[in-house]
Amino acid sequence: MKISILKSYLNESIQHVSKAISSRTTIPILTGIKLDVNHQGVTLTASDTDISIQSFIPMEDDNHTVVTIHEPGSVVLPAKFFVEIIKKLPSQEIQMEVKENFQTFIAAGATEIQMVGLDPEEFPVLPNIEENQTMSVPGDLLKNMIKQTVFSISTHETTPILTGVLWNLNEEGFKFVATDRHRLATRSAQLENEGDVRFSNVVIAGKTLNELSKIIPDQNTLVDIVVADNQVLFKIDRVLFYTRILDGTYPDTSRIIPTTYKTELIVDTKKLSESIDRAYLLSREEKTNIVRLQTMENGGIEISSSSSELGKVREELEVSDFKGEPLKISFNSKYMLDVLKVLDSEQLMIAFTGIMSPIILKPLDDSDALYIILPYRTTN
Amino acid sequence: MKISILKSYLNESIQHVSKAISSRTTIPILTGIKLDVNHQGVTLTASDTDISIQSFIPMEDDNHTVVTIHEPGSVVLPAKFFVEIIKKLPSQEIQMEVKENFQTFIAAGATEIQMVGLDPEEFPVLPNIEENQTMSVPGDLLKNMIKQTVFSISTHETTPILTGVLWNLNEEGFKFVATDRHRLATRSAQLENEGDVRFSNVVIAGKTLNELSKIIPDQNTLVDIVVADNQVLFKIDRVLFYTRILDGTYPDTSRIIPTTYKTELIVDTKKLSESIDRAYLLSREEKTNIVRLQTMENGGIEISSSSSELGKVREELEVSDFKGEPLKISFNSKYMLDVLKVLDSEQLMIAFTGIMSPIILKPLDDSDALYIILPYRTTN
Repeated sequence: MKISILKSYLNESIQHVSKAISSRTTIPILTGIKLDVNHQGVTLTASDTDISIQSFIPMEDDNHTVVTIHEPGSVVLPAKFFVEIIKKLPSQEIQMEVKENFQTFIAAGATEIQMVGLDPEEFPVLPNIEENQTMSVPGDLLKNMIKQTVFSISTHETTPILTGVLWNLNEEGFKFVATDRHRLATRSAQLENEGDVRFSNVVIAGKTLNELSKIIPDQNTLVDIVVADNQVLFKIDRVLFYTRILDGTYPDTSRIIPTTYKTELIVDTKKLSESIDRAYLLSREEKTNIVRLQTMENGGIEISSSSSELGKVREELEVSDFKGEPLKISFNSKYMLDVLKVLDSEQLMIAFTGIMSPIILKPLDDSDALYIILPYRTTN
Repeated sequence: MKISILKSYLNESIQHVSKAISSRTTIPILTGIKLDVNHQGVTLTASDTDISIQSFIPMEDDNHTVVTIHEPGSVVLPAKFFVEIIKKLPSQEIQMEVKENFQTFIAAGATEIQMVGLDPEEFPVLPNIEENQTMSVPGDLLKNMIKQTVFSISTHETTPILTGVLWNLNEEGFKFVATDRHRLATRSAQLENEGDVRFSNVVIAGKTLNELSKIIPDQNTLVDIVVADNQVLFKIDRVLFYTRILDGTYPDTSRIIPTTYKTELIVDTKKLSESIDRAYLLSREEKTNIVRLQTMENGGIEISSSSSELGKVREELEVSDFKGEPLKISFNSKYMLDVLKVLDSEQLMIAFTGIMSPIILKPLDDSDALYIILPYRTTN
């Protein structure tokens, strides 16, 4: 293998694939990034067995030369050092050559690097995915659906299935569900290019979705998604992102979502968020995060919290619409803030079915999202 | 105590004094910020016994009212909660009132806070400093002198005196010295307003100087410094910053600074820094940080490092002036980078007195700084 390549392209590809490198891997070959050079271009691959990322660098882009191939070939290079040194090389053009025993020589300006390479034959083969079930989702929609659900996953490894986000696609649309048993987040969307793809019980680890989000560009990109038996493949521009589907059956959460409400309020999302945040500051010191919400006779609501050592916070908030019975309820303010932070909607409906029953939060926009927080049992 | 005060002023003062709050204090009163209200304005004070910071808020500033005093008085409020809640209050004007048992009521917009206050009589009295020895230093010069020396202090509590920076002021100027026995940083300056102030062996803890730097504004400010027996007081606008002088005698470092050199090089600071940084990346993986510098026959220098597991980095660097004998020397690249990072000078002199003797670094500007790094003993 012998090539000359532009630093900016190599660096961008390295940044993408390095998200699959685990610092905790015990398999030496997986601490590396694989480079494959053929007459189409250069392919970089990294994997931690749960996720694998592949990034392709073409020979030419926008009519200028990106890679010049003197000799095709493959090598695996130590990821951590490779990632950092390429970023810091002094010239835009980089020469790379693999010699005997995978010794790799990199030259840029007056800098010469000799890197101990590994045998590419030892690198695991990527899953072979049949592309029957392919659908397309706008990148910004996919990022938003991830952002608006992934914070509700469980972080306890005792219930592995809950560390993922459930994906379903059927006649009703494309739906994400996440829950840690204390709260629930759901977000749905209608897709334009879903074809006749249908699937259910596809559960993808929350941390994988966070890494995927970082790779999806902010501008208009269409992400192709291929769902196979135990793998999902995402195609984003020149990047392929493979992830394992979590084993197990995701619990049925549809029954815990109330369909009738006793009390309904409509409030300003930003004002509620700032108000809860102030009460949270105090409740956090008590290590409970308990904040109370109470309807008032003047039609508004009161947000309050107290700490035996520090004092009390109490404030009033206007409500633009109020229906149903008066109520006083306590909840984990951190859970409420997590929801309020990810909402884009200016207004929000909060609904209750009783002081011991789930609190429902629904943004008043077209995002088709619904959040549930279980209340605290308190004595007053 | 009953006042009405502008949030921005209160918040700025809180930010200043809260730098003296230690999260590890075991003395309850020191977890608080003291407020003293009299007819001049409001004074905030915080202390961790090593450092104490006082910030004054005047009744008026730029011809607008900042504080309206309804009733003078004092209280101590829990710092952590007070710092955070004031920042997040919804209105620009804040009402504060201290009632029975130091219960403090804070109101802003529709937010009402009740805070458990403590007795201000319990708060320690600030040191009484005689202002005989007062000098003035431009704020940006003081910040720069701190930045260019403080990184060389020792972090080992076994030699407490070396965790500070030594300050001397005599006929030769105002001088800072810091060393951890492996490296040394010195920086001097001539002052215009020193009067006849002279002192020696004033050692101030490095972490205190870092906090002090954060309070000094970037724009043109003159810092008044008062040196007393065991305390130094800094006056910065409306802030008073008191710190203890470290106990003990700082070692005499003048003997280890060579006065004649066997080899002298002049190099570009930025190019040397980038070159050492690349070699450092590799040496760091070996946990040694060892980088080699070697003069070459063509009059340049070679920077190199190697790792048995990862490979080698080697590069050449131009030298704009070379005097003396050829040489090959190994050193801790992290120490070298620490120096190169804080220098403002475009060019740098590196001087050597032998392969086992200190490496001298001197910026070629008017900053009058000098750095020493002890070399590594290596087999080749």
